[in-house]
Amino acid sequence: MMNIAVAQSGGPTCAINASLLGVFQEALKEPSIDAIFGSVNGIEGIINDHLIDLKTLITTNNDMELLRQTPSTVLGSCRFKLPDREDDETPYKQIVETLRQRQIGAFFYIGGNDSMDTVNKLSEYFRELSLDIKIIGIPKTIDNDLRITDHTPGFGSAAKYVAATMREIVRDSSVYSLPSVTIVEIMGRHAGWLTASSAVLHALGESAPHLVYVPEAKFSLDLFMKDVRQEMAKNKAVIVAVSEGMEVPDGVQSGVVDNFGHKYLSGIGKYLEECVRREIGCKVRSIELNVMQRCSSHICSKTDIDESEAIGAAGVKLALSGETGKVMIFRRINDMPYTVVIDSANASEIANNEKFLPKNFIVPSGNNISDAAIKYFLPLIQGELNIIMENGLPKHFTIQESLLR
Amino acid sequence: MMNIAVAQSGGPTCAINASLLGVFQEALKEPSIDAIFGSVNGIEGIINDHLIDLKTLITTNNDMELLRQTPSTVLGSCRFKLPDREDDETPYKQIVETLRQRQIGAFFYIGGNDSMDTVNKLSEYFRELSLDIKIIGIPKTIDNDLRITDHTPGFGSAAKYVAATMREIVRDSSVYSLPSVTIVEIMGRHAGWLTASSAVLHALGESAPHLVYVPEAKFSLDLFMKDVRQEMAKNKAVIVAVSEGMEVPDGVQSGVVDNFGHKYLSGIGKYLEECVRREIGCKVRSIELNVMQRCSSHICSKTDIDESEAIGAAGVKLALSGETGKVMIFRRINDMPYTVVIDSANASEIANNEKFLPKNFIVPSGNNISDAAIKYFLPLIQGELNIIMENGLPKHFTIQESLLR
Repeated sequence: MMNIAVAQSGGPTCAINASLLGVFQEALKEPSIDAIFGSVNGIEGIINDHLIDLKTLITTNNDMELLRQTPSTVLGSCRFKLPDREDDETPYKQIVETLRQRQIGAFFYIGGNDSMDTVNKLSEYFRELSLDIKIIGIPKTIDNDLRITDHTPGFGSAAKYVAATMREIVRDSSVYSLPSVTIVEIMGRHAGWLTASSAVLHALGESAPHLVYVPEAKFSLDLFMKDVRQEMAKNKAVIVAVSEGMEVPDGVQSGVVDNFGHKYLSGIGKYLEECVRREIGCKVRSIELNVMQRCSSHICSKTDIDESEAIGAAGVKLALSGETGKVMIFRRINDMPYTVVIDSANASEIANNEKFLPKNFIVPSGNNISDAAIKYFLPLIQGELNIIMENGLPKHFTIQESLLR
Repeated sequence: MMNIAVAQSGGPTCAINASLLGVFQEALKEPSIDAIFGSVNGIEGIINDHLIDLKTLITTNNDMELLRQTPSTVLGSCRFKLPDREDDETPYKQIVETLRQRQIGAFFYIGGNDSMDTVNKLSEYFRELSLDIKIIGIPKTIDNDLRITDHTPGFGSAAKYVAATMREIVRDSSVYSLPSVTIVEIMGRHAGWLTASSAVLHALGESAPHLVYVPEAKFSLDLFMKDVRQEMAKNKAVIVAVSEGMEVPDGVQSGVVDNFGHKYLSGIGKYLEECVRREIGCKVRSIELNVMQRCSSHICSKTDIDESEAIGAAGVKLALSGETGKVMIFRRINDMPYTVVIDSANASEIANNEKFLPKNFIVPSGNNISDAAIKYFLPLIQGELNIIMENGLPKHFTIQESLLR
């Protein structure tokens, strides 16, 4: 008999709790697994021995379905980056201490790039110590920028929100007879996946978004203004999708720094809005989809949630088969009918890397998205959950705050 | 036999097309009504004789259900304010010309304040000319600021989006162990109805929003900072709802300069965010719900959509009964079980007036919303439609652009 632990890390998505549920349900089925610990605030909960017994919290089928539908991370999160062992071995020792003390034989880390780095470093450390504790990474990020995996859990739901909202913005923008420009700023610091996904509207008969700018394509203000004027000649209401991470070539970049030391990149939409106002003088508006694009689980993708749950469960099976230092991945077999299989890769290959939009996903002129990309995106946004409502609003699963403190 | 015309005006909501459908379906049932004309871009379509035959466009049950679910205005909109007759009689004459030419016996105007002013002016004009053309106003506005009616069509759906999104933002904000402040800016220039509606979360066990600021209550930056500090002592993640129309008493309005050196125009949320950053220095974020709060029909309120349809249908019945110059209204009989009846009032009483939050809807300290208000809001956000999807996204009803040009 052994215990296991699971933690959630990085920025929220609609699917991190579904992966937690996948781990939990698979572990429940395993006779060799006793306690299932949730680590509070990612790896920090292991370092500080802040673990909670999930079997006492998730007790009914209703709990499980609610957890699946709840956005963000019920166990909290962290932005902790494990230092190199040579620089500071302390957290490594604390982690080993907790895992041994709690008789934890496998640890599942649901997270993005930084978390996969943790999976890699810890599994190497354990190997050297000949410690038989398996470490498996379960990927998640709305950015879809992890290598090797076809796509990341959480991305499909974000893409569905973005596209559905973009379509509603198209309706909203079309009401007046005056020409107008609407600029929608979408998350993505370095990679344009989420911004690009808004172009699935083209497959549904919408001409919008008329222009799509991603960090992977060359951009200049002159070209942007030329593009907008051209589209205005054809469309009364021009809709532009733009990645928050676009760099304006003259080096002007929004630069507010948050408390984690990350730059807030919100600002390109507002900046382009001002440019259009100044140079064209038409009705113009910018819209930031902000955190809604990562937490609007009321319109999550069933494909994404089901896959996120399945990839969590597959992680448990992999650990029990004796593997460690692996990250679970999706391999796409076919677009239509959509077929994926779950596989794994070495954490070392995924950690600290980013994946960018391939060249053929962007049209040659650099200002829109290709049909090849739309074929890739469409399967990921399919299907809806039956959202559990209470008093007119989606109900959420929560853990009482005193347990998380 | 007579024809009728219907037009949509003002800012988009999720329910304006439902009211159009209500008018259309009721008119279909009436043997005395022949053609049902849609006027393109509000009253401008009547002035310019730009009418389209709705019976040729809305032909199946599926069309009708789609129309009901489609946000914004399928017939376009306008911001045209009918001048006083003494100043300029031209548009009046053009309107009479079109209505006579097209043998229109009743005109239904779905809109806000300005549109009800048009209903009032036109009905008086027709009376004086002894013209037997009925004019009926069907209210709509997410602002909920029309007098006499208990609430306005479109408000319930906006409130449901705001509250559901606020709840998701609560989950999103709660993940990190660091204290944080999240400021959500909600539409409402003069009246705080929509901002106040976010407090329905209190009835669902959420402590957020911890602070709610509406234009009807006194506000100062000093009080705001004191409130925030107090809430931070009790809550790790403080959530603030603020009306876009709040005026900072020292006259500084929306003066944040971004890194591009431009002033942000939209701004109380951003402004308060900067104040918190400067004075407290904690993690702080502002979120503008922007046009999504008026067009996110994928999470519309069934109560709102059903009522909006019913009030449109009731307008047709009223016109046929011989009334004119009236605006349709809701009278609430009971909160629980929720009961409303549809009635009418003179357009003159509703036009050019605003309705503000009553005093007892705001707590004495002015920084949150009372239980009385929550009782008022809750029934309006109940129920969901079965949203028709296509390829993973809500489907919309649209009219081909060539007909609208």
